[in-house]
Amino acid sequence: MARRKDKLSLGAFLLFTGHHVAAWRSKDASDSQTLQDFVQFARLAEDAKFDAVFLADQVGVKIDRLNAASRKAHTGVYPFEPLTLLSALSAVTSRIGLVATVSTSYNEPFNVARQFASLDRLSGGRAGWNLVTSTDASAALNFNHDGLIPHADRYARAEEFADVVNGLWDSWEEGAFLRDRADGRYFDPAKLHVLDHRGRHFKVRGPLNIPPAPQGRPVVVQAGSSEPGKALAARTAEAIFTAQQTLADAVAFYADVKGRLAKFGREPDDLKILPGVFPVVGETESEAKEKFDYLQSLISPEVGLDLLATFLGTTEILNADPNGPVPALKETEGGKSRQALLVDLARREGLSLRDLYLRIAGARGHWQVVGTPSQIADQLEERFENYGADGFNIMAPTLPTGLEDFIRLVVPELRRRGLFREEYEGRTLRDHLGLRRPQRRKPAAVAAE
Amino acid sequence: MARRKDKLSLGAFLLFTGHHVAAWRSKDASDSQTLQDFVQFARLAEDAKFDAVFLADQVGVKIDRLNAASRKAHTGVYPFEPLTLLSALSAVTSRIGLVATVSTSYNEPFNVARQFASLDRLSGGRAGWNLVTSTDASAALNFNHDGLIPHADRYARAEEFADVVNGLWDSWEEGAFLRDRADGRYFDPAKLHVLDHRGRHFKVRGPLNIPPAPQGRPVVVQAGSSEPGKALAARTAEAIFTAQQTLADAVAFYADVKGRLAKFGREPDDLKILPGVFPVVGETESEAKEKFDYLQSLISPEVGLDLLATFLGTTEILNADPNGPVPALKETEGGKSRQALLVDLARREGLSLRDLYLRIAGARGHWQVVGTPSQIADQLEERFENYGADGFNIMAPTLPTGLEDFIRLVVPELRRRGLFREEYEGRTLRDHLGLRRPQRRKPAAVAAE
Repeated sequence: MARRKDKLSLGAFLLFTGHHVAAWRSKDASDSQTLQDFVQFARLAEDAKFDAVFLADQVGVKIDRLNAASRKAHTGVYPFEPLTLLSALSAVTSRIGLVATVSTSYNEPFNVARQFASLDRLSGGRAGWNLVTSTDASAALNFNHDGLIPHADRYARAEEFADVVNGLWDSWEEGAFLRDRADGRYFDPAKLHVLDHRGRHFKVRGPLNIPPAPQGRPVVVQAGSSEPGKALAARTAEAIFTAQQTLADAVAFYADVKGRLAKFGREPDDLKILPGVFPVVGETESEAKEKFDYLQSLISPEVGLDLLATFLGTTEILNADPNGPVPALKETEGGKSRQALLVDLARREGLSLRDLYLRIAGARGHWQVVGTPSQIADQLEERFENYGADGFNIMAPTLPTGLEDFIRLVVPELRRRGLFREEYEGRTLRDHLGLRRPQRRKPAAVAAE
Repeated sequence: MARRKDKLSLGAFLLFTGHHVAAWRSKDASDSQTLQDFVQFARLAEDAKFDAVFLADQVGVKIDRLNAASRKAHTGVYPFEPLTLLSALSAVTSRIGLVATVSTSYNEPFNVARQFASLDRLSGGRAGWNLVTSTDASAALNFNHDGLIPHADRYARAEEFADVVNGLWDSWEEGAFLRDRADGRYFDPAKLHVLDHRGRHFKVRGPLNIPPAPQGRPVVVQAGSSEPGKALAARTAEAIFTAQQTLADAVAFYADVKGRLAKFGREPDDLKILPGVFPVVGETESEAKEKFDYLQSLISPEVGLDLLATFLGTTEILNADPNGPVPALKETEGGKSRQALLVDLARREGLSLRDLYLRIAGARGHWQVVGTPSQIADQLEERFENYGADGFNIMAPTLPTGLEDFIRLVVPELRRRGLFREEYEGRTLRDHLGLRRPQRRKPAAVAAE
């Protein structure tokens, strides 16, 4: 197979004090509680020419599992809300993309469209929206629901939500705001498009009350790998943040999703596949393994089972024997694809509950690589060259140290192999990712009275 | 009467290119379309030791009045969304308060509570929320409604919304997050308070998924001066942004609102009265008048009538003769107090529609002062010393020039009179405004399982 001519993308996934569930207990992690911590992380990634920083999110705290949760940082209590944090970072960075997770389940599309357009304008075209549905019953209880919205309903709402947001982003054409001081015309009504959306979940007239975003539309990212998730991504996403454990699965997923695009008049390059990678890097194999073992040693059993319960979307296993196998599970209304990935993994490798929670404590269901810079670069290169990924979201085990390790040790190796940029070539997140500006839809302009 | 011992507060109201409706056409105004413009404005105000910058907001564009609107900037199209813009400013300022308008009509209280708590954490305790209800039918159409929510319903929702937000801000006590690396306890369940709100408009369990805000609760500001507005402010607001034309009205309003506080167990100092002031400052009276006349000359009649229609909450006058009187108006479901203030003003002074729109084109129903630094300082001092105000929201006619004028000419005069601070004494917006930290409510802590 000929080598790919494009370069790979790198995102910095900034989760708490690091991606490992016990990162906050590590001597190598910062507290990650202040804006200055996140400024440091974002500048590290920007200096290394990463495409973006990426913030996860949830909107509920699992108080029903409080005793176990009291031992872990990852309870749904985030130090900042993502859109406000990335807005702050927009003022002190200049090139790196800023991707925030915001749920379609408990927001109004007008507000989401407006805040992302605002972030895109604040940052000069660096905003991305990770569109998720909320898979967590604790969140539903904060938004007038008595329990989780069923999976199918969440996706139907998400699809309509994405349509409304995209439509609102098209409200004003470039050049609609004339600001002609002499003539006194502030804007040109002929360049205004009124959405007038009336659907099953939303009635939204528009237009969006903000001038056009520098990127036309902020980049839309999605994370779902379930069947409805892939269907939604093929129709509306421009990057997909996914998790496959093996090269074969990654290649199959890549081909599956890219193959769905033509149906919507899209090209394969209109959607980038960016799986998460949890890298533990050492100058030597034994140093890498030592770092990883140290982090694993910080996990208490109740934290491990609690984390696993979240990932499996069930509390059934909370009181199970950690040395026993994964029991048969009821179907969940939570993240279906995540449950299936983990159950498959346990079956395939004969893992106990403890084995399984140790396996996900770092990567959280994503791909885990532990080794030397060249071992890690080999694996990333293999996935990239075999069309299993267009790039990777780097889930540093600890922040900032794990990110520093990756940048100091692995990035130069990727550059030596011609796989990653030396300098930014463009100014926007679309430029970095190699994404075209999406075509505007063409609703009729509103006739001025 | 003995002189007041406290000092007055100053806010910088940052509206578009300046508060005057034709500011954007002025040779003295910036475009105010980039983050850097707003950084400049905020730093000007911070260098002058203002208490806060203040952002207004709307969430709809009045497309039914598009031809007139095409001639003015103030159509509801804001260059940025307020929370994202203030978050960006939090990273490049260090002392000034950051107050954003967010409506209770079309948001979820959990999201609003969280974003303001996040802004408070980003800024080290400088966040304020200007709680409004949306008085604009164009906004309703963007949020699943077929028309404006009736006034009484908006206020009932706002009251419950404020209760939920305040309750959510009390979710975690100071010290709830232990982050004890050795012991492995991340937080202390005994310092968690679960709201479990079940009301007419909202069911919100909580807790809020963010650590406590530095101010305990961000400062709550309100703008309504109607009867339900004053009632809501007396119960929940800590600052009130109001508009009275005369000293007598200002003193009466001040006494009325402060007199309502005891009923809720609050002290007069727990609520600051901060009316808007539109100052046109000149070194001489004739220079001030010249500046003002220049701005007034930039207003076209269709812009004037359109602005007036917005303020009266009716389109009835759009095609009226500008030289005729204000006709009898139908009662509005929009901002009742604003309509009444303007109709009273026109009756009292026998103003034509044109006279009235010229009167509001700058101050927009707020108090307009045109003169020399000492004339303006005299008027501010009179209102302050007579308990008609605790401070003022400065609505610069043009940005940055009008704000620069006020800071260069009027602020030193206020300082000479001992009315305004020379330096910041505290670090938070509460410190600047002289507001106590509100008492936490004491719901029972959730028992850990």
